[in-house]
Amino acid sequence: MPSEARFDHARIDQLPRSNSEPCGHNHTLETPISPDGTPVLGKRYEVAARGGKAVRLKAGQTIRIINTHGTQVCDTWAFSTANPNEFMSWEHGRAWLSALIPQVGDPLMSNRRRPIMTLTADTSPGIHDTLMAACDLFRYMTLGVEGYHDSCADNLRLAMQAIGAEAPEVPQPFNLWMNIPVNAEMKVDWCPPVSKPGDYVELRAEMDCIVAMSSCPQDIIPINGADCVPVEVHFEVYK
Amino acid sequence: MPSEARFDHARIDQLPRSNSEPCGHNHTLETPISPDGTPVLGKRYEVAARGGKAVRLKAGQTIRIINTHGTQVCDTWAFSTANPNEFMSWEHGRAWLSALIPQVGDPLMSNRRRPIMTLTADTSPGIHDTLMAACDLFRYMTLGVEGYHDSCADNLRLAMQAIGAEAPEVPQPFNLWMNIPVNAEMKVDWCPPVSKPGDYVELRAEMDCIVAMSSCPQDIIPINGADCVPVEVHFEVYK
Repeated sequence: MPSEARFDHARIDQLPRSNSEPCGHNHTLETPISPDGTPVLGKRYEVAARGGKAVRLKAGQTIRIINTHGTQVCDTWAFSTANPNEFMSWEHGRAWLSALIPQVGDPLMSNRRRPIMTLTADTSPGIHDTLMAACDLFRYMTLGVEGYHDSCADNLRLAMQAIGAEAPEVPQPFNLWMNIPVNAEMKVDWCPPVSKPGDYVELRAEMDCIVAMSSCPQDIIPINGADCVPVEVHFEVYK
Repeated sequence: MPSEARFDHARIDQLPRSNSEPCGHNHTLETPISPDGTPVLGKRYEVAARGGKAVRLKAGQTIRIINTHGTQVCDTWAFSTANPNEFMSWEHGRAWLSALIPQVGDPLMSNRRRPIMTLTADTSPGIHDTLMAACDLFRYMTLGVEGYHDSCADNLRLAMQAIGAEAPEVPQPFNLWMNIPVNAEMKVDWCPPVSKPGDYVELRAEMDCIVAMSSCPQDIIPINGADCVPVEVHFEVYK
């Protein structure tokens, strides 16, 4: 265990008590795709490097999320429009699938044990992560960051706020293209993505939901490629 | 994917919208260890079969949780007393440890990336689970249960209410003695515990916190031993 000095309890205790409230601010709050998050079907949207976007899907619509440069992890969440306390939940999803990573055709389960989305296509080698929390300011503090640092947790909160919604929690994300191998001793490693430029996944909404995405701003460990440079990803919504 | 008929959407939508509210009721609500959950140090308490208990710990105190019969899974949570939105979080804990299961000496991290407890002793072979959601009524519905069924999620909610507290969410539990092996293809299996009668773990509080435990009421699949009979566990708190 690291020494106690790595935990700045005074600073931690000054940050928001609620898990819905961001610990800081970036461009995400001012750049929704539309005032309420409704997309233009077929239009290509950017999730800028280090930022987040949220988009409203109707049941039956499909979102294609594109790893434009091939090296970028995209943290992804889904919340039911009818009740945001129902969300894509990997502790429930892993149990349903008896697997750590979903494959094409698999339902992505909510915390009410029903499909909120389905993974309908994946042109990448299928290496994604459902084990690791979204990066958050607390994570960057343990890595030595003293000021603010963009984070996937805040990008979720800000992207939801930007379309007039609220994330009730920061659930375990579906970390697209994040490469976390597990060995026989149940230890894990942190590796760069194995996807190639232009790889995409498609997720079909099984209920009306808000999908939030964050282009992971991790630039200290090489989870977004060996050069530690976060870049943008793109998405499109289809009927 | 199972057929759509396994998801009773109408019934799911009638259950509480909040994740803090139980979906039903059992003896847990009427059987706190004391009105506010403060323990008598050194006293042995029972978590009855199919039920839950919550106990307040001061920083530095240790709870010993005993698998009295050796076959029982005990779902365990910890919430900061100062701010229950800070809780033991396995998506953060797995990341901190780069492992799926903690070992003796490991900190058990909160969602604010600091230790909320430490695993200080374990007489069992060390097989526990951090991957699977607490069982909940939704789980039993997918297993064909038509009425109410006790669940770890409701035991958490009721045990917290019983001492005048509230669980803001149902986080991924520390599933003591739950045996979920992961294979090289990242698939998991569901196996009976490998612990023996009287095995215990000790968890030391690193901050004032409420620890909640549920004697898992799963009696349909053999996760609590091959005979599918949930039984009681015990706990004691030490200075």
